[in-house]
Amino acid sequence: MNEFVYFADLFGTAVFAISGALAAGRLRMDPFGVTVLAAVTAIGGGTIRDTILGATPVFWITDTNYIWVILITAVAVMALVRCPRRLSGTWFQLADAFGLALFTVIGAQKALSFGTSPMIAVMMGVMTGVVGGMIRDVLCREIPLVLRKEIYATASIVGGILYTISLALQISQVPAMLIAMAGALIIRVAAIYWSLSLPAFELNSQSK
Amino acid sequence: MNEFVYFADLFGTAVFAISGALAAGRLRMDPFGVTVLAAVTAIGGGTIRDTILGATPVFWITDTNYIWVILITAVAVMALVRCPRRLSGTWFQLADAFGLALFTVIGAQKALSFGTSPMIAVMMGVMTGVVGGMIRDVLCREIPLVLRKEIYATASIVGGILYTISLALQISQVPAMLIAMAGALIIRVAAIYWSLSLPAFELNSQSK
Amino acid sequence: MNEFVYFADLFGTAVFAISGALAAGRLRMDPFGVTVLAAVTAIGGGTIRDTILGATPVFWITDTNYIWVILITAVAVMALVRCPRRLSGTWFQLADAFGLALFTVIGAQKALSFGTSPMIAVMMGVMTGVVGGMIRDVLCREIPLVLRKEIYATASIVGGILYTISLALQISQVPAMLIAMAGALIIRVAAIYWSLSLPAFELNSQSK
Repeated sequence: MNEFVYFADLFGTAVFAISGALAAGRLRMDPFGVTVLAAVTAIGGGTIRDTILGATPVFWITDTNYIWVILITAVAVMALVRCPRRLSGTWFQLADAFGLALFTVIGAQKALSFGTSPMIAVMMGVMTGVVGGMIRDVLCREIPLVLRKEIYATASIVGGILYTISLALQISQVPAMLIAMAGALIIRVAAIYWSLSLPAFELNSQSK
Repeated sequence: MNEFVYFADLFGTAVFAISGALAAGRLRMDPFGVTVLAAVTAIGGGTIRDTILGATPVFWITDTNYIWVILITAVAVMALVRCPRRLSGTWFQLADAFGLALFTVIGAQKALSFGTSPMIAVMMGVMTGVVGGMIRDVLCREIPLVLRKEIYATASIVGGILYTISLALQISQVPAMLIAMAGALIIRVAAIYWSLSLPAFELNSQSK
Repeated sequence: MNEFVYFADLFGTAVFAISGALAAGRLRMDPFGVTVLAAVTAIGGGTIRDTILGATPVFWITDTNYIWVILITAVAVMALVRCPRRLSGTWFQLADAFGLALFTVIGAQKALSFGTSPMIAVMMGVMTGVVGGMIRDVLCREIPLVLRKEIYATASIVGGILYTISLALQISQVPAMLIAMAGALIIRVAAIYWSLSLPAFELNSQSK
């Protein structure tokens, strides 16, 4: 992975860790809880991706920078954040969208490097992007928001598809990444801006 | 795996995917949520089995038919199902019992092919049969039904034990499978027919 | 692993299994549920540790004594325990603290034997000690207690750090284990005795 992507990946890790730490803060968890929530949100998706692919030991065992970023982020959130509203504002949502787009591409890339089909690569990209947040929500005893209505996973799916199609069209690595991330970002930002969501699949609730 | 078992396995995958998609519909999840619930219910147990055994990449990475079956099932449920009562009827329960019996045998078989002891093979069979539904329930913020009182896991356990005993008695593969599946099915169908359940283990609720 | 540590490990497994079985009893689960809760509490942390490290098949696949201990413990709890208060008393809490301390050291040891850095070894030790209880709580639809305020993970973290520092100081295996376990036990017992807990990280709850 070239250096720019690597630092962007650490930046995305920090952004996801902040979102986990804030969820812990809302539930008045202790410093251990804050750190665990930060960690599962930031590296949970990639960890499950790696165990499914058999890419073990998983990525953060061999490169401990991810853990350092999470620890520092968790401490910083606890020390500095008293008014989380600032962090749920537009800038943070943009940073989160960037993290989602990048994690998707990195996850898809890793799957392809293990010889998976493009469809599985898209799945692994989406898993890298959204499963950490799902585990965070389950630990907070909430039904994962991403399953309900936000256009969040959709952005990740589109990013993953654009990436694999670009590679299939012989576009080289870096432009393929940029195309995929741009696609995911546009959809996610549009969803935030116009508060878009997918229609729910509803069943008659009387039925069991 | 011979061809009949393979197609039966895909059929069981579809049945379990329907049960996940319906759970998502009851909670008004969006199409992504429906697909995720369908997938975790159908392949969650086998995925955890494979990562525990070290059979990675897990089965659906190399054979993407499982994913196609899940995607098509999820779309079909969203397009066609408005009255889920029809799907919680007797025919669906029978199909689900068939899926449970088959997944148990396939899971036990896979464990044995990795050289485990018969007891571990039974566990891996039960895991293949019931863990997907447990993850589905956790994502729906429910205590897994299978842990509470239905005779569901019991059918799977009996199937797994019959299978490993049959093999120990030198019965060959196909009849051993049939004996095991018949045993699991009889117990599960009897439980549905007479609404049987295991007695609960109750503690004085005042105690902590 | 020398023999004393091995039997202590099985003892810790039984203690953790009891805590899982009691949680199941409080929710009136059936015998299958009791056994599953006993198992995830006792071996859940070590299982996730092993899949993350790539130490597959995981430890209880090759050594089935762990499963036997869990099965016997689950049956014994269901047969004998009617008044769980006796089991939430001081002796049980001490046994649980011992299990926590030992699991931490064993987890850290295993990670180091896979060549991880000391920091990752501490993480893997803590994971071995606390993740089983977290899965138990999630299956019981509770926010994991360990994330909220008890000084429980803290004891494990201190134990892990003492262990890796002792090894770095060239202290040999057995005394390093004893130092680490003593440290973890002192903190945990002090926390129980004086009902200590860490301060929560609170956010203004109006904010989203």
